[in-house]
Amino acid sequence: MDERAWVAALRNMTRGGPGVIQGIGDDCAILASPGGGPDLLVSTDMFIEGVHFDFGKFTARQAGYRAVARALSDIAAMGGEPRWHLISTAWGVETQERWALEFMRGAAEAADEFQSALVGGDTSRTNLFTCDVTVIGTVPHGEALPRSGAKPGDGIYVSGLLGGSEYGRRKGPDFPAGWTRHARPQPRLALGQWLRGKASACMDLSDGLSLDLHRLCLASGVAAEIGSKLPLWPGVTHAEAWRDGEDYELLFTAPAAVEIPPSWEGLALTRIGEIATGPVSEVYLDGKPARIAGYDHLADRP
Amino acid sequence: MDERAWVAALRNMTRGGPGVIQGIGDDCAILASPGGGPDLLVSTDMFIEGVHFDFGKFTARQAGYRAVARALSDIAAMGGEPRWHLISTAWGVETQERWALEFMRGAAEAADEFQSALVGGDTSRTNLFTCDVTVIGTVPHGEALPRSGAKPGDGIYVSGLLGGSEYGRRKGPDFPAGWTRHARPQPRLALGQWLRGKASACMDLSDGLSLDLHRLCLASGVAAEIGSKLPLWPGVTHAEAWRDGEDYELLFTAPAAVEIPPSWEGLALTRIGEIATGPVSEVYLDGKPARIAGYDHLADRP
Repeated sequence: MDERAWVAALRNMTRGGPGVIQGIGDDCAILASPGGGPDLLVSTDMFIEGVHFDFGKFTARQAGYRAVARALSDIAAMGGEPRWHLISTAWGVETQERWALEFMRGAAEAADEFQSALVGGDTSRTNLFTCDVTVIGTVPHGEALPRSGAKPGDGIYVSGLLGGSEYGRRKGPDFPAGWTRHARPQPRLALGQWLRGKASACMDLSDGLSLDLHRLCLASGVAAEIGSKLPLWPGVTHAEAWRDGEDYELLFTAPAAVEIPPSWEGLALTRIGEIATGPVSEVYLDGKPARIAGYDHLADRP
Repeated sequence: MDERAWVAALRNMTRGGPGVIQGIGDDCAILASPGGGPDLLVSTDMFIEGVHFDFGKFTARQAGYRAVARALSDIAAMGGEPRWHLISTAWGVETQERWALEFMRGAAEAADEFQSALVGGDTSRTNLFTCDVTVIGTVPHGEALPRSGAKPGDGIYVSGLLGGSEYGRRKGPDFPAGWTRHARPQPRLALGQWLRGKASACMDLSDGLSLDLHRLCLASGVAAEIGSKLPLWPGVTHAEAWRDGEDYELLFTAPAAVEIPPSWEGLALTRIGEIATGPVSEVYLDGKPARIAGYDHLADRP
């Protein structure tokens, strides 16, 4: 079973409920605020020693920063503004108090930078250090950016440069430029908010362009044609940019009538292809059906 | 470091933010809905193989039920109504797909019973099966029941019978009455809602009466005097009822002017003592300072 099958199984056993505008299957759920006004966005992200970060390479503070920043990327992907978050931690066998406090200081640094208030959490013990970050944001009612709105003819865009995070991870902390890219992901919150009313679909790049684009197409019921030009992080190959994840850039689509500039507030916006008719979720790379690569947490054991 | 020191450290590195009516340190955070109307209640609870449940004794379905029911108990403790929840799971080395699906079916059973809609989650792999449940509820604006409102002279009450969960755990699944009490905790949602406007302070009994009462006194800046009579689950001793956790009954205080009946909708409500002046958080049991027992997730390694 892969993540898609798992999510499908969960959907089958889940009923909607009052206020559920959109449930599981997107970067965030969209919920109607009980008193009206902006919609609520909620999402949760696990961050586990050895799975999501290399305990030996990360300082505690870097790990905490990254745990919160990547969770906030889901709010960015929906076009929302962060408000509140909760952090559950289960300390591993080797987790020292000092390490855990430094982790929370790194988490607080990201929270302050991106304007989210820590309002709760839980603490326990386990085997491998485990953290789960729940983020709650808001978006004007009806303006959240789902994955499911892409239409044939829409342009496909990515922000920034691809493959830098995995490149930085491979090079390690001794190569600061790449390492910073890996350890300090920047949720594209301002860009996501700017894309409200412009993008037809949007998601963040967490598991690799190939797999994430495949998911966007699946949610939208469309196919995609990707050209040979991807915006590459220096030193990264086309194949790596296609496959490698955790860049936390935005992948979005926009109708031809919407003008997307080549950059916005210093961040490159690159048109990498076009939404097409054709077999649902099929992605064509340079005209040929592409092999879907990328990281699946259930299918791929760490 | 124990949980109290950890929470204090987190509070020191946390700033409030817009809409934060009450942050960390209670059963739930209380947040102002962005559009006005009812307040939001949010809380998160980890549920880990070997720490929070015995993998060998629980069926997958029981484990899933329990994970959600105990998380919803935090909504009950605040006098709220459940709305939505998110479930993150990290599958352990021995977690089979079938087990994980059955776990989610048990979770869905509790969610249906207590009227909460699953709206999200995350899935990953780890060493020991780990689950984190985030619950979001609502409560009429300004009516949430905090831990911090107990005043000298208030009566101290508990719902139901104490010690049954741990008794059931020790006896194991072959003794259905006790086991059901352990495996299927019942969040006291209706009681919590009824206590709005009546109770001066309220929390749920998760880590044992002794430790939880100590925490309530600490939050309220008061002491407590407990009599010799506790409502005991059949077969449970006074010392066990004082120490053992996970009953998920409500512990609450009410001013003398508020009449609390001996039972409500079939659930016993027992006056076990009175809030007192005296050293903050000191608990007197039958006139003598009590030793604080109970489970601390950080101080007590599993």
